[in-house]
Amino acid sequence: MNALNVAETMQLLGVQARQASSAMARASTAARNQALRELARLLRAHTDPLQIDNARDLERARAAGLAEPMVDRLKLTPKVLETCAQGCEQLAAMPDIIGDIVGLKQQPSGIRVGQMRVPIGVFGMIYESRPNVTIEAASLSIKSGNACILRGGSEAIDSNKALAALVRQALAAAGLPQEAVQLVPTTDRAAVGQLITMPQYVDVIIPRGGKGLIERISAEAKVPVIKHLDGNCHTYVDDSCDLDLAVKVVDNAKTQKYSPCNATESLLVARGVAQAFLPRIAAVFASKGVEMRCDAESAALLRSGATPFSVSDAQESDWYEEYLAPVISIKMVAGLDEAMEHINRYGSHHTDAILTRDHVHAQRFLREVDSASVMVNASTRFADGFEYGLGAEIGISTDKFHARGPVGIEGLTSLKWVVLGEGEIRS
Amino acid sequence: MNALNVAETMQLLGVQARQASSAMARASTAARNQALRELARLLRAHTDPLQIDNARDLERARAAGLAEPMVDRLKLTPKVLETCAQGCEQLAAMPDIIGDIVGLKQQPSGIRVGQMRVPIGVFGMIYESRPNVTIEAASLSIKSGNACILRGGSEAIDSNKALAALVRQALAAAGLPQEAVQLVPTTDRAAVGQLITMPQYVDVIIPRGGKGLIERISAEAKVPVIKHLDGNCHTYVDDSCDLDLAVKVVDNAKTQKYSPCNATESLLVARGVAQAFLPRIAAVFASKGVEMRCDAESAALLRSGATPFSVSDAQESDWYEEYLAPVISIKMVAGLDEAMEHINRYGSHHTDAILTRDHVHAQRFLREVDSASVMVNASTRFADGFEYGLGAEIGISTDKFHARGPVGIEGLTSLKWVVLGEGEIRS
Repeated sequence: MNALNVAETMQLLGVQARQASSAMARASTAARNQALRELARLLRAHTDPLQIDNARDLERARAAGLAEPMVDRLKLTPKVLETCAQGCEQLAAMPDIIGDIVGLKQQPSGIRVGQMRVPIGVFGMIYESRPNVTIEAASLSIKSGNACILRGGSEAIDSNKALAALVRQALAAAGLPQEAVQLVPTTDRAAVGQLITMPQYVDVIIPRGGKGLIERISAEAKVPVIKHLDGNCHTYVDDSCDLDLAVKVVDNAKTQKYSPCNATESLLVARGVAQAFLPRIAAVFASKGVEMRCDAESAALLRSGATPFSVSDAQESDWYEEYLAPVISIKMVAGLDEAMEHINRYGSHHTDAILTRDHVHAQRFLREVDSASVMVNASTRFADGFEYGLGAEIGISTDKFHARGPVGIEGLTSLKWVVLGEGEIRS
Repeated sequence: MNALNVAETMQLLGVQARQASSAMARASTAARNQALRELARLLRAHTDPLQIDNARDLERARAAGLAEPMVDRLKLTPKVLETCAQGCEQLAAMPDIIGDIVGLKQQPSGIRVGQMRVPIGVFGMIYESRPNVTIEAASLSIKSGNACILRGGSEAIDSNKALAALVRQALAAAGLPQEAVQLVPTTDRAAVGQLITMPQYVDVIIPRGGKGLIERISAEAKVPVIKHLDGNCHTYVDDSCDLDLAVKVVDNAKTQKYSPCNATESLLVARGVAQAFLPRIAAVFASKGVEMRCDAESAALLRSGATPFSVSDAQESDWYEEYLAPVISIKMVAGLDEAMEHINRYGSHHTDAILTRDHVHAQRFLREVDSASVMVNASTRFADGFEYGLGAEIGISTDKFHARGPVGIEGLTSLKWVVLGEGEIRS
């Protein structure tokens, strides 16, 4: 596709999305839920043919020499499809928040004023590899009464096209416009540049992928971007802490999975419990092959015990690092104030936890740590739309604006003001 | 001030604002309210000396040949100062929403999850002429626990400096950092360019002024902007409408004041009531010297009656126009659908009203008109933070993102997720 054709294609998708968004905003709860249930049915009914489309992507990926873990992420196994189908059904079963009016209050002038929850309009989503994201995004878009334009990774284009065809069928079956969910049909990179600079057609961009991709998109976009940058998450072990609980939670926060953005990357330990706590958690990390990058004080402590540990010396850059790997930075701090100062300075404002028995410390940590999720006595791994009860998640925002932390249906809506009067005039 | 000095000055303001914002986020409700009450006291105590500072601005403005209505806007009369003082006291009396935790719910994993309202951090405000905006912005910033950097118009620089000095005194008296509210000390235009491109220090920009200024700032800013673009507001007179009510409300919406953004600029009338309604409202407009720019059908009706009216022919461009003047565009429509289509196409998504007795029409209008404020049987002039019960208003947003419509304290906050556990781990 040449540049002119890409521009024309994106323009057409934009016009169609904007039109479809009006119909979706008007659509009944029943119709949107019917589309979701129909989509679940179609995913199950087409499990076999979808394998064939998916196989073409897998073949191409292997031929291009993609590493097997990356090929794995592309797979639309029957299990993955069943999870997608269940996700659609769960969304259908959730209450509809579109049209809710909150806070309707009588004003001295006589008018009643409240706020109605309405769809944002059109969102553009840019994502890589996993084709099941196509279904997650489409289903959240349908439930929230939006239209969307989806730009998946080129490596999953055959799978995405097949899934998008089922979404169109499901929309049509429910009497909704098929253009409410559109897949960008070309893998041309110029399409992304177009998608993020059409404010007349697209209200918000949601990118999912590496930090570099998201920074690039944010810099070039002409519409708001729900950014999900890095997760440099901290767990702080406070002075008055249940150490059994701390070992269990820190272990889980770091080692349950290394790749998620909500895994703990940095451990801060109050000096008062360091002697009792650090060797215990170091033993866990050592047994699991987690590299420990320590500040001078914690390194000295861990190297000097009855059973010395092999740890490396942390560099200044380590405090900023999102490892996404079996590596953790460790620092001893004087107490709560130094811990919070460190987190607010080096952290990425994603998710941070305090482990403590001290009520005042817990309250101060919740209030003063400037992160999208702040936790007391829980694993940072809980920062997730499903775990938070949102039903589904379109992304995790590290922005403070509009949506913060895990973003579900509500993050795809806005509140408009509603004024009900009986002929009042302003004096 | 040369370019280097401007850059250094803005950098310093940024560093100080970021530091102050942490202290403000931690500050007690009592301290923030004390600062507001102290500011009210200082404004009253300094009414006389403030006149002297203000007089220098007025003198300069007159010497520069500024029109008297513009000079008027600069005046810090005792009445204006008393209104500012009362505004501060009203804010102090309002409940504190910072630290509120909403929706705390038990999850299946055992954790409890909710959302805490916290300050945004640092906002930058760019505004023109009226120096009382300095106090409005400062007081909203203090109440909401933010820090702010204020950039007022050069024509009010002496008044703004004197007011900012009182704000610093009030902050100090309450034990809060004086750098929580900083005025840009230079009138150099380069300072604006710096202010809107310091994402490390400034979280959001709120511009108040003409559409051109706001579009320029939005295009160049490297941080989110709460935009207040134009208000091309509509009132639609529906078929089943109380015509006495309609005459009263449309008259108020257009003529109570011509300059506000929430004044009605376009009148849509259902064909079924046009014959009965249009001559009545035209008589009102004619008596007040309001120019009527009509589509062919309404023009024909108004020119052909027993007492023909003098109306002009609307051009296509009139439907987009925000006149802010004694001019109104008038169009006859088939009914609700055509009215909504027209509003969503030509309007600026600010404020639009339907006047009707029909419940279904009212509901559809509220749901389907894509504007920040949608009204039934009320004057569009009500779209205002005070009239909506927000206590104060930092601006009116025509964005859908973050804040929509009148923006009060809540618009200067974000919600972060709070997780309370007892040692839960993710499985």
